Amino acid sequence: MNKIVFGVDIGGTTVKLGVFTADGTLMEKWEIPTRKEEKGRFILADVAESILTKIKELGYNKEDVIGVGVGAPGPVNTSGTITKAVNLGWSRMSIVETLSPLVGLPVKAGNDANVAALGEMWKGGGRGFSSMVAVTLGTGVGGGVIVEGKLVAGFEGAGGEIGHIHVEDDEQDYCGCGCQGCLEQYASATGIVRLAKMRLARNEKESVLRHGEISARSIWDAVKAGDAVAIEVAEKFGDYLGKGLSTIAAVVKPEAFVIGGGVSKAGEIIFEYVRPYFDKYAFAGSDEVTFALAQLGNDAGIYGAAKLVIEE
Amino acid sequence: MNKIVFGVDIGGTTVKLGVFTADGTLMEKWEIPTRKEEKGRFILADVAESILTKIKELGYNKEDVIGVGVGAPGPVNTSGTITKAVNLGWSRMSIVETLSPLVGLPVKAGNDANVAALGEMWKGGGRGFSSMVAVTLGTGVGGGVIVEGKLVAGFEGAGGEIGHIHVEDDEQDYCGCGCQGCLEQYASATGIVRLAKMRLARNEKESVLRHGEISARSIWDAVKAGDAVAIEVAEKFGDYLGKGLSTIAAVVKPEAFVIGGGVSKAGEIIFEYVRPYFDKYAFAGSDEVTFALAQLGNDAGIYGAAKLVIEE
Repeated sequence: MNKIVFGVDIGGTTVKLGVFTADGTLMEKWEIPTRKEEKGRFILADVAESILTKIKELGYNKEDVIGVGVGAPGPVNTSGTITKAVNLGWSRMSIVETLSPLVGLPVKAGNDANVAALGEMWKGGGRGFSSMVAVTLGTGVGGGVIVEGKLVAGFEGAGGEIGHIHVEDDEQDYCGCGCQGCLEQYASATGIVRLAKMRLARNEKESVLRHGEISARSIWDAVKAGDAVAIEVAEKFGDYLGKGLSTIAAVVKPEAFVIGGGVSKAGEIIFEYVRPYFDKYAFAGSDEVTFALAQLGNDAGIYGAAKLVIEE
Repeated sequence: MNKIVFGVDIGGTTVKLGVFTADGTLMEKWEIPTRKEEKGRFILADVAESILTKIKELGYNKEDVIGVGVGAPGPVNTSGTITKAVNLGWSRMSIVETLSPLVGLPVKAGNDANVAALGEMWKGGGRGFSSMVAVTLGTGVGGGVIVEGKLVAGFEGAGGEIGHIHVEDDEQDYCGCGCQGCLEQYASATGIVRLAKMRLARNEKESVLRHGEISARSIWDAVKAGDAVAIEVAEKFGDYLGKGLSTIAAVVKPEAFVIGGGVSKAGEIIFEYVRPYFDKYAFAGSDEVTFALAQLGNDAGIYGAAKLVIEE
């Protein structure tokens, strides 16, 4: 019987689970609710129970299971300790030492955005690259830095916080992190909407964006339709994101950026606005860097979590 | 007989060589001229000859030598191929495959600034840290990124180019790299002098800097003496450097920054001007990051080159 591996992605509302073959074929995926009561003390026990049930259900034994990988929403260091996870009610805790005895299997853990990056490298938009940076443009801007096939967790798990790269000196509003001028303030779903509202307030130009709700989607639809104001917004978005990514390139020089999250759903058109600014700000050799779209969507986390276990 | 290892740091004028015990004690160091004629084709042969002579001179055999590590002034990928080294006349070449047969020993190679970072981690200001970023404020601004004890060479050896992090949108002058607003334009030896000249031109305030030559050293001496204009320059320098380092922290979150090069010779006083800006721009947890001074000076390269071989 071939070996299998579990990937677990713990979110604030649901826990996503997947069972994979050792070569990364997703056999089955499912979800369980995230029980946040009593500071989230039941979450890992629920995960363990769900995995043990699934092993039986599939007719496997524990000996057939390589291990369990976990992505969690907070900084996770290389030994699998999470510093805190506000969304789950967790304070500092070793995910590895807590879950491993419950499930009776080897466990690895990482930050959810970092782990999703690993998933994209393994089976998504980053296939074929050994050094890449995944950028998720969602509610916030998250990321994962992979160097020679390994995640850069950073000291106490705080690497890959690329949404908090400083890109604007003249910002008056504050980012959720307490700083001013973070990439997240311009390139997240709320960030690009904010850019659009600022642009609309600043001039009187007619735009489809003046009618109906403004969202990342409506902005990119308007860009595709040739709306002049929307194109200005896309340029500004591209300027900030290109600047942020150029900085990442100066530090670790990845082979590829793999861009995902809701804001990237518009597709490759976003690169038309990001790439020229990246080239403008980046050190020599920037043209060697590939831009690609993420491909795994919400499954990136379970793929990457499984990969965490396999790579050891 | 204990094993020994050689560290070689190839510069544009001289090649520095050192022979170390396996635990990193420098037994002897010396220099040979860098023969740049005929596109630098004699350089590695000269290195090989010098090493073979030294082995004999010390009464060792080749079997006693672990290997030879080399730092070179250009991008070097993980397999030891340098893309080019303008200062030496070299175009793309495998340092490993060229030098190893000449010397009959295992060879490893890396970029000189990256390798110097490894030296500082091993035996200098970065001792005790496994993830650190070395920042060299010299003629330019160079650096090396170390994650969990390993150098991040970057794609085609272009990682750690931290002098080219974009930190100023309103720059009119160009950096040597062709971009505008690179960290190097403000935090290198010429950069801080440029900041001082701009500041002096902009107002009429009396300053010791108006009399005599302006250098990194004279600026920091004036800061220490309480000169108001010099202090403004130090603040501006600290703002740019703090901003650049905050960006690095967002990407890889090192445990420590180890600062070296001529501009840092003023000592820990520079941290009084950098740290507050780093904290201003950096994501939560910035206070966990240690700032330390580099300790090995020009020997960092030979130490780190030797370490390249030992770590394998």
